[in-house]
Amino acid sequence: MENEVEIVLVEDNPNDMELALRALKKNNIANNIIALEDGEQALDYLYGRGEFADRNTTVNPRLILLDLKLPKMDGLEVLKVIKSDPEKKMIPVVMLTSSKEECDVVECYRLGVNSYIVKPVDFDSFVKSIHKIGFYWLLMNEHPKR
Amino acid sequence: MENEVEIVLVEDNPNDMELALRALKKNNIANNIIALEDGEQALDYLYGRGEFADRNTTVNPRLILLDLKLPKMDGLEVLKVIKSDPEKKMIPVVMLTSSKEECDVVECYRLGVNSYIVKPVDFDSFVKSIHKIGFYWLLMNEHPKR
Repeated sequence: MENEVEIVLVEDNPNDMELALRALKKNNIANNIIALEDGEQALDYLYGRGEFADRNTTVNPRLILLDLKLPKMDGLEVLKVIKSDPEKKMIPVVMLTSSKEECDVVECYRLGVNSYIVKPVDFDSFVKSIHKIGFYWLLMNEHPKR
Repeated sequence: MENEVEIVLVEDNPNDMELALRALKKNNIANNIIALEDGEQALDYLYGRGEFADRNTTVNPRLILLDLKLPKMDGLEVLKVIKSDPEKKMIPVVMLTSSKEECDVVECYRLGVNSYIVKPVDFDSFVKSIHKIGFYWLLMNEHPKR
């Protein structure tokens, strides 16, 4: 049986990706993280398509950390697909983005995002922020089990 | 101009209510909290009805902490009304409940809850938990400004 994936991290900036992975693995908040680089890959993963055709899609990840600006298909489109699907909408989605634009915030909430976090600019605050996000969603938040 | 309400706390257990208020006011995480005791009062507040008829309803609170089992109208009904309303659905709603029942968790996510937290049983953990919830949603999470 495959291990439960705790976090799906969708991020096209390699520096942010590496920092986020490091922060999440620190103190064992999350060990089973899938790192994906664009919106298409995110949906392929969730729906078990393409390179993820072998995946057991009946088990949802516990959290999706989703960047807003992504190659191929942007974060808003990915969010829309997830939150329009009666099964996938159960997965908590946290936008993790550098955009503080009010129109982006409003659109994400309109589509049903669970939370919206603006990436802190400096290194230390970014790592601390990711750590707190992981702690909140993996150790405090209750999610549907299937 | 009235101050922005940061948190609407809907809780019928007076002990939990007092503890939660104390935890939220500690370290000035939230100072402007509205404490309500049942589901009807929660909706009256949000829609400016009854005793809240004078309220300016164009400004949304930043967070609703909602108990599941409430007198008059239960938390699921309140959640359903909020998340079916294109304006009110923008408000982050966190269920704060003693129920770990899978059917409650699933139903809340189906209705569009932002997060679901099971109340820790012991005093200290409860206070710490509320503090972390307040920190996450008020100091980290970005919400639509209107």
